[in-house]
Amino acid sequence: MTPYLNLIAQNALAAGSTDHNVNLLILLVLGIGSGALLMALWLLKWVMAKDCGPDEMQKISNAIKAGAEAFLSRQNKTIVIIAGALGVLIFVLYAFVRGHHAFDPTDTALELALWTTLSFLLGAGCSVAAGYVGMWIAIRTNIRTAAAARTSLNDALQVALRGGAVSGLFVVAMSLVGVAGLYYLVFLVKAHGLEAGTPEYDKLVKQIPYIIAGYGFGASLVALFAQVGGGIYTKAADVGADLVGKVEKGIPEDDPRNPAVIADLVGDNVGDCAGRGADLFESTAAENIGAMILGVALFPYFGVGGVMFPLVARSFGLIASVAGIMIVRTDEDADPMDALNKGYYLTSALAFVGFIIASYWLLRTEGEFLADAWQYYTACAAIGIVCSVAFLYITQYYTEYKYKPVLSIAEASLTGPATNVIQGIAVGLECTLMSVIAIAVAVLASYHLGQEALPQLDPVAAGLFGTAVATMGMLGPAGYVLAMDTFGPITDNAGGIVEMSHQPDSVRQKTDRLDAVGNTTKALTKGYAIGSAALAAFLLFSAYLDEIKNFTQAASYVTVDLVKPEIFIAALLGAMVVFFFSSLCIRAVGTAAQSVITAVRIQFKERPGIMEGKQDPDYGAVVDIVTKDALRKMVAPGLVVVGSVIAVGLLFRALAPDNDPELGAKAVAGFLMSATISGILMATFLNNAGGAWDNAKKYIELGKGAGGKGSDQHKAAVVGDTVGDPFKDTAGPSLHVLIKLLATLTLVLAPLFIAGSH
Amino acid sequence: MTPYLNLIAQNALAAGSTDHNVNLLILLVLGIGSGALLMALWLLKWVMAKDCGPDEMQKISNAIKAGAEAFLSRQNKTIVIIAGALGVLIFVLYAFVRGHHAFDPTDTALELALWTTLSFLLGAGCSVAAGYVGMWIAIRTNIRTAAAARTSLNDALQVALRGGAVSGLFVVAMSLVGVAGLYYLVFLVKAHGLEAGTPEYDKLVKQIPYIIAGYGFGASLVALFAQVGGGIYTKAADVGADLVGKVEKGIPEDDPRNPAVIADLVGDNVGDCAGRGADLFESTAAENIGAMILGVALFPYFGVGGVMFPLVARSFGLIASVAGIMIVRTDEDADPMDALNKGYYLTSALAFVGFIIASYWLLRTEGEFLADAWQYYTACAAIGIVCSVAFLYITQYYTEYKYKPVLSIAEASLTGPATNVIQGIAVGLECTLMSVIAIAVAVLASYHLGQEALPQLDPVAAGLFGTAVATMGMLGPAGYVLAMDTFGPITDNAGGIVEMSHQPDSVRQKTDRLDAVGNTTKALTKGYAIGSAALAAFLLFSAYLDEIKNFTQAASYVTVDLVKPEIFIAALLGAMVVFFFSSLCIRAVGTAAQSVITAVRIQFKERPGIMEGKQDPDYGAVVDIVTKDALRKMVAPGLVVVGSVIAVGLLFRALAPDNDPELGAKAVAGFLMSATISGILMATFLNNAGGAWDNAKKYIELGKGAGGKGSDQHKAAVVGDTVGDPFKDTAGPSLHVLIKLLATLTLVLAPLFIAGSH
Repeated sequence: MTPYLNLIAQNALAAGSTDHNVNLLILLVLGIGSGALLMALWLLKWVMAKDCGPDEMQKISNAIKAGAEAFLSRQNKTIVIIAGALGVLIFVLYAFVRGHHAFDPTDTALELALWTTLSFLLGAGCSVAAGYVGMWIAIRTNIRTAAAARTSLNDALQVALRGGAVSGLFVVAMSLVGVAGLYYLVFLVKAHGLEAGTPEYDKLVKQIPYIIAGYGFGASLVALFAQVGGGIYTKAADVGADLVGKVEKGIPEDDPRNPAVIADLVGDNVGDCAGRGADLFESTAAENIGAMILGVALFPYFGVGGVMFPLVARSFGLIASVAGIMIVRTDEDADPMDALNKGYYLTSALAFVGFIIASYWLLRTEGEFLADAWQYYTACAAIGIVCSVAFLYITQYYTEYKYKPVLSIAEASLTGPATNVIQGIAVGLECTLMSVIAIAVAVLASYHLGQEALPQLDPVAAGLFGTAVATMGMLGPAGYVLAMDTFGPITDNAGGIVEMSHQPDSVRQKTDRLDAVGNTTKALTKGYAIGSAALAAFLLFSAYLDEIKNFTQAASYVTVDLVKPEIFIAALLGAMVVFFFSSLCIRAVGTAAQSVITAVRIQFKERPGIMEGKQDPDYGAVVDIVTKDALRKMVAPGLVVVGSVIAVGLLFRALAPDNDPELGAKAVAGFLMSATISGILMATFLNNAGGAWDNAKKYIELGKGAGGKGSDQHKAAVVGDTVGDPFKDTAGPSLHVLIKLLATLTLVLAPLFIAGSH
Repeated sequence: MTPYLNLIAQNALAAGSTDHNVNLLILLVLGIGSGALLMALWLLKWVMAKDCGPDEMQKISNAIKAGAEAFLSRQNKTIVIIAGALGVLIFVLYAFVRGHHAFDPTDTALELALWTTLSFLLGAGCSVAAGYVGMWIAIRTNIRTAAAARTSLNDALQVALRGGAVSGLFVVAMSLVGVAGLYYLVFLVKAHGLEAGTPEYDKLVKQIPYIIAGYGFGASLVALFAQVGGGIYTKAADVGADLVGKVEKGIPEDDPRNPAVIADLVGDNVGDCAGRGADLFESTAAENIGAMILGVALFPYFGVGGVMFPLVARSFGLIASVAGIMIVRTDEDADPMDALNKGYYLTSALAFVGFIIASYWLLRTEGEFLADAWQYYTACAAIGIVCSVAFLYITQYYTEYKYKPVLSIAEASLTGPATNVIQGIAVGLECTLMSVIAIAVAVLASYHLGQEALPQLDPVAAGLFGTAVATMGMLGPAGYVLAMDTFGPITDNAGGIVEMSHQPDSVRQKTDRLDAVGNTTKALTKGYAIGSAALAAFLLFSAYLDEIKNFTQAASYVTVDLVKPEIFIAALLGAMVVFFFSSLCIRAVGTAAQSVITAVRIQFKERPGIMEGKQDPDYGAVVDIVTKDALRKMVAPGLVVVGSVIAVGLLFRALAPDNDPELGAKAVAGFLMSATISGILMATFLNNAGGAWDNAKKYIELGKGAGGKGSDQHKAAVVGDTVGDPFKDTAGPSLHVLIKLLATLTLVLAPLFIAGSH
């Protein structure tokens, strides 16, 4: 290790004398990233200093904490084993099977294998950490939010949001520091003896993003298992608790007599916090690397600046998120959603200013000021931000009970559960229309602007960088969005703690209001996540094709021609995997919920005193059952995804004719793109149908429907809400991760699918 | 007209002296087709001569007849208006907008416009006729089946199947005679003065399939409206009748006291018979033309034989279907499904023999006997037949209560409607796995065999013809399959008539057994329809690309490169249209069912004597409401499909850069292929989920579940069954048609999407 450290020290001194200095840019990014981490730490201290409330609250909170930590540590054990095995596989494939090529970005196969495996493991490790932090802070903030609700709404709101922000800032900053740090590490090791500005030096700067692509794969692999496992856990517990508690026993939500109630509250943390944290971690990490790879194509114009632009712009977005989080405050009788929206709009506006600065600094050509490239890129970023706002509006329209879709579901509930379910499915399917149009407009417009920005460049490369900048624009406020997202389960838990510890109604009303807002923010961030996944995936498979092009040293771009039966069949298989994966996730919730129901029924039977409050239910037993079930069932969906890509790649590689050695790689591209298309649509359908059902039920519960709580209309709406649970919290969010996992997985494995490559 | 008729007479004498004579082959096809029509007529007479049973049966049957005929004639009026408008549009586009090109297959733009419009209108007219015949015979066979059930099971079975066969044979024969007749008509008119064997003559033989492509478009346009309108009608009536009758009033299915009962029985005829008849008519017609277009590429090897092979093979399949239909008979205590299966296997075997003969006759190269091309094509046909059997097995596994999937839904019903729905959706999504693998294997294997058959030829053209032959193999027994399909609604209606006319239990038991078999055959033909749609669509978009290639006189094949953002976005839009279209269909059923429920509730309120049988319900009022609703709601889905293709084509045509004038046409290709992929998966999901829910309910009703009829488990299963209704009988089957409509629509409109073409 010592010689390496020496090298690093030497290079750190020697490197950097181009116009845009690698050292300067990286250190700026690392500096801002570290600053954001410190800010997260400060917020953490602020939250932790808050009052924890009385003992009866703490008792419940401790039970949640114990369950969540037990689940996550067991889940991580499984994930570490799978990731470790894949790490070994990647190493062996790169070091021994793949062979070494003159155009590889390192000197030996072994070195490339080492870097790729290291990147993969680092990405996986950081993703585990992201999930863990999300859960860690959520299970500590929930009780403090509940306690704060005893004083004022603003206190509770701020505690919950800042708790969420600890996770949001940490996750986004870590993805930034991880990618930038890894880049710098490779740079320092490899730049030894190279003069800045020489062709070898430039080549290195351009090659590093490919070397560290494994980071994104590691991150998304972990995210998939975390999201699937957590998603199954949370909804199995929720559905099971509801069906026995509310439907069979007629006791309200979060009633302490329900043996599944703690499992339900644990679920919010491990599914929504840990899962979503890992998900957004890998989103930003994968997008960072993908955008850097595209930036390489612009090297002749922007040099290092183009490669580093994604990291710099993201770091400015982090600053914007901090500002947004800090200004949020609400009056006692105001709608807390307005306060959160204000923070969101401020973050977006500041992130946009950051984009203007970064573009002007790094992406200037010699054109006239008013028609210079940086202006086009600023416009691309604006498109991304507008697209994210459009997604928020579309999601609100389809999932809030102010609007027609949810009202139509509530009305359909009057004729029973069947018409409720039919209407909900119709609403979910319908909302793909506007979402897809938003994506289409954003991609086409930013592609076109990208081409205008650099008319001298190959139009495909120029256009793709435009879409990459739009994606960055969309992901600019990611830190704030993730904070809002984590806010959801925190307030949900706070409500549960207040209810279970029998607080006065005035406190419960405050947490209820925050909980309702939390449901909205959870739905919104899902819309945001799928929109950004759509844009980011597009960018990632461009990177994949770039990798194939580099690997085969092809003169022109690789085509993925759907006319070829092999490509068409691969595309059909890709779309199918999305359907099959969704089936596995949804079924897992259904069967795991059935075990919960059975276990709870037995408890009610064996402990007849539970209902009168004379006997304590055994919360731990249910937590244990859900934990085991969720962990067992999370493995198959993940392996299906990884296995199917490898199977398709190797199958079509075997079928490749002599004159088309890249058939396997192209088939995988078709598989990936088709899976992305189906994944976007399926996730949009599942998320919004679930959200709409949820709020149709809420609408009726608030007494706004023809019936009220307990009426037949309400019972019908509860059925729809339950059906929607695995849709919106298990399969839907897991599909976001699936899309990005496929992209990063194929990026790393690309060379294996090319015939004759070993 | 007289000069044309003269021409025809002259050419009929002059033409035909090549090895395979156009006259001979066409006349053979027309002869067999006419023979099948005569056979249908004979079966019609046979069925009509059967006893109609007592007056109380006839009263009910007449009410069904009146409702079905009223709906169909009003539906046809709407369809005629839409088809007429589109016919004018096509004529104007071809005659004036599109312009005329030296490489067009006719002498003037006006002539091409005339032929295309004529083909379109003829296809539309035949499709209307196909639907009408299906309905006409079904509403006359239902009562005769009911009457025959009073004597023996075999009588009832034979009457129902042969009634179905009238429709099956008529539809398939008419599609054959239509395509062959249209081909012959163009040939006779245009071959005037051409010597057989000259280049001009050969060119004509090859060009005619393109000229008559409008026939397929007309057929599928009508089929879409027929299937969507009929599908909405049947399920709105069914869901409405069930929810008020069974759930609210607690009266059994088909109870005469239910005011919606006649509408429900009418629905079986207009949805399942008329809709499916039009659907399979356009399937076979579109596939005939598509395969002929692919056969053109093989002209250097097989001459006229390659172009005519699809028609000849199809006509042999018709003979096989007749044989299969005639052997079906059952013992009183045997399972009638076994008898139907026997007929199916005989038909498949004979159709395969027909393929061997046709291949040996028409598709011989000069190779060695054991490695000659015809053998490879025979193998392709075998693949198609095996694929159709595989689809039957997969469908059975997922929808029959002998197997795990349906049992798991029944078990999930124990914990209520929500878990029932969750499990059903999981089962539906899961079944895409095996279906897609079957399609993948069939396409890849037949493509490969096609290449082996003609190694000298361009591998893409050779391979595609292989897949075309596999598709023909799959569609070989189409006549028999359609007979089995129409059997379903006939026995369903017969059961209703028996129930409503208060026949003895022994009669009801017989119709119940047939009805159960009918449910299975309906599910099976849906699997068959989607499988063949998948294979046929593949062949149709090859024809589309061929058309673009011819039109632009490009040297190489057109590529549809998913890497291009425009193509990717078009593909995303194509998949979205499938989701949105499904939403429209499903929602239409939901809202139309709600109007039925409201209307029925009012009747029960205003006529309190209905429940005691003292007052007659007003069946006609409900029939009228459903008719109006279904017709109003069928227009939007159809226009969405047609409109979106035109919009995408023109949008990307407008965006086309100078160096890629075909961008619009390519984007439409991407749209089409992606919609096909999503359509296959979505239809498979919807059909099988619906079928599985239906049979899970049946399983419980038969007392095989933990509860029985009326238990909570049963009530939960009824919810799933109702949710599945619009899945399996409205959206699912409509998607089959959508896939083929898109393909034929794009084929006809292709030239409009190419920049600079006018």
